[in-house]
Amino acid sequence: MTPVPDVDSRWDGLIVGPSLATLDDTRGYGEVTDGAIAWKDGRLAWVGARVQLPGDEDSLADQVIEADGWITPGLVDCHTHLVFAGDRAREFEMRLEGASYEDIARSGGGILSSVRAVRAASEDDLLRESLPRARALVADGVSTLEIKSGYGLDLDNERKMLRVARRLGEVLGIEVRTTYLAAHALPPEFSGDAEAYIDAVVEWLPVLHGEGLVDAVDAFCEGIGFTPAQTRRVFEAARLLDLPVKLHADQLSDLGGAGLVAAFAGLSADHVEYSSAESVAAMAASGVVAVLLPGAFHVLRETKLPPLEAFRQQGVAMAVATDCNPGTAPLLSLRQAMQLACTHFRLTPEEALRGATVNAAHALGLHDRGVLRVGARADFALWDIRHPSELGYWLGGRLCRGVYAGGRFIG
Amino acid sequence: MTPVPDVDSRWDGLIVGPSLATLDDTRGYGEVTDGAIAWKDGRLAWVGARVQLPGDEDSLADQVIEADGWITPGLVDCHTHLVFAGDRAREFEMRLEGASYEDIARSGGGILSSVRAVRAASEDDLLRESLPRARALVADGVSTLEIKSGYGLDLDNERKMLRVARRLGEVLGIEVRTTYLAAHALPPEFSGDAEAYIDAVVEWLPVLHGEGLVDAVDAFCEGIGFTPAQTRRVFEAARLLDLPVKLHADQLSDLGGAGLVAAFAGLSADHVEYSSAESVAAMAASGVVAVLLPGAFHVLRETKLPPLEAFRQQGVAMAVATDCNPGTAPLLSLRQAMQLACTHFRLTPEEALRGATVNAAHALGLHDRGVLRVGARADFALWDIRHPSELGYWLGGRLCRGVYAGGRFIG
Ligand SMILES: [Zn+2]
Ligand SMILES: [Zn+2]
Repeated sequence: MTPVPDVDSRWDGLIVGPSLATLDDTRGYGEVTDGAIAWKDGRLAWVGARVQLPGDEDSLADQVIEADGWITPGLVDCHTHLVFAGDRAREFEMRLEGASYEDIARSGGGILSSVRAVRAASEDDLLRESLPRARALVADGVSTLEIKSGYGLDLDNERKMLRVARRLGEVLGIEVRTTYLAAHALPPEFSGDAEAYIDAVVEWLPVLHGEGLVDAVDAFCEGIGFTPAQTRRVFEAARLLDLPVKLHADQLSDLGGAGLVAAFAGLSADHVEYSSAESVAAMAASGVVAVLLPGAFHVLRETKLPPLEAFRQQGVAMAVATDCNPGTAPLLSLRQAMQLACTHFRLTPEEALRGATVNAAHALGLHDRGVLRVGARADFALWDIRHPSELGYWLGGRLCRGVYAGGRFIG
Repeated sequence: MTPVPDVDSRWDGLIVGPSLATLDDTRGYGEVTDGAIAWKDGRLAWVGARVQLPGDEDSLADQVIEADGWITPGLVDCHTHLVFAGDRAREFEMRLEGASYEDIARSGGGILSSVRAVRAASEDDLLRESLPRARALVADGVSTLEIKSGYGLDLDNERKMLRVARRLGEVLGIEVRTTYLAAHALPPEFSGDAEAYIDAVVEWLPVLHGEGLVDAVDAFCEGIGFTPAQTRRVFEAARLLDLPVKLHADQLSDLGGAGLVAAFAGLSADHVEYSSAESVAAMAASGVVAVLLPGAFHVLRETKLPPLEAFRQQGVAMAVATDCNPGTAPLLSLRQAMQLACTHFRLTPEEALRGATVNAAHALGLHDRGVLRVGARADFALWDIRHPSELGYWLGGRLCRGVYAGGRFIG
């Protein structure tokens, strides 16, 4: 008589056959050929070579799936503004037709057009408009998603955006991390009085945090955004609540934004094209992740590269994100951001993959995902590829065959 | 009693509700709001505003479909090398890891690695490898596809590639136009004797043409390819068979390639970054289409722009294509080539859409598609967008909801 396997100790699921890119080392893909991966209660329970599985495959798990291709950790998009209403494709078109920024502003374009559209939309409308974008990201491998507020710019509308972000996570079965970015732009009702607006931003934060809507705090520190002193006030408000900070830093000029994040032991400095050597050293010392956003670089035809060699030499972890937003980064695929990072920033495909998985998770303060390792969340993606370098190589195509989040197949 | 509609005069299909971008004027999208489009026997039978339909919708066609979004002409990818074996993602990776071209050549990379892989593959293998790429293009709106030979470089292997190209069209239900590009690179067995190889290229052409495998003839005219004199010999062989010519012209230097196409009243000059004012004038005079290939421009980080203003001023039609190939343009979406054309070349989204439809059709000598007009082939694509400018705007995403070729739904 065969012993009946103990049902309680059986895994929930097991996939056998594909190659694995575990990323479970500081260098290389952590490749396993003819691999196997199992999960239980939402966590990875076994990762390795199929031949080393401890017993008869069919008895090991409730569900056993044979597959080929590759499995990577689920992608983590650590910087998006994907909750918005309307789009700005017509503005993109007008610019290419030769319209000046003044023309566009006169015709109602620019970031404030997104603010008007978000304010005018109901919460359900905003969810309905944002859902296809989030779905597109998931369809190309994403299992964890950061979403920022910042087109509401008043208490009720920032709340609405953050609630929609949370609901997207529930609808799609993925984890959504929310970032409070009220300090994104100066709303018209505060025109000319940025300090008074920062007072309001600082006042709204504990309210929204109290409602469970805020996982981190961000600001747009730039000549055309908020000053370092104003950013510091926002960061101090975050610190009072024990909330981690991140920053739109040094995108168009060096205001020392990345260094400011380091001073607050923050999670990440994002964009960072103009960050100084001092800022890079401070990031390295404080473990701040550099979030590279090649989509905006691409669309804006930027030429100033981030200090990539300095990041490498000083061990600053580099993440890659879509920055999905209607003005400067109409990206609906993190894999395409990886391609742009390889092309524009000369990241290796391996750096781009680490940037879109383990380093992106760190940029969100998450240390339980982004690698395939026993005990990590069972977040992974199946790809129809022969080698993981293809994830930084192809533009277009449907390479992603499926995504699991917390051990559940989500698309 | 209602008169029974004459079944013979009924349309095969009718779609009501979407907006149409007919492109049926020399300027603008030719927009029709709340439109209707009908087809019969593979041709468009009615195009216009839904309210002007001649009678009760349900009685007009065998199949009536209600839709929203937009319909554009089916996309035409007029320059691809998508029949190949293997990929060169590892070579892409090695370059980004700092390998020199010598290193890559030593490790077996470069175009000759594709030649070896194609020669080693059976016809069925080559079909199986190429099919997902063609499918990806169709899934993003393509209903007519050009495919070049040029990795076989001997009679049997060029034949094998062209046969696979034809079979792809049959499998997918789209029209595939084949281009003979044996003059793509010098195969190792002719090393050092390009003239002798051109003798062979000229000899193989009538054989393959006799087998119905050749719709046009192309060559790679470049310092690292073939000389203008050698190209001329290939073109003369094409002229003897009444075959139209096109050319990889002036990509890396100005050898007068675009002017040579004009001298042969050819269909298109492709790449054309370095084409001279004289060549542009000759193209205009002969109606040669300029095929822009922003994917290779992107991947090679080229900075020399094609003479876009001269093309506009002199009325040279501009097409946009993927150039889908494993070395310099790993593109699996013509829409993504349109995005790159808008970003890198500052084409307007309308120019990019014309470039991927009507002008691309002209680059293949086809005048029965690329617009929505009664009598044209019933090739069209349905898009989940609010405005056609979005087709040049988004990177990634699944915007294409369906493609029809010759009145048949193909995906
Ligand atoms: Zn951003
Ligand atoms: Zn080509």
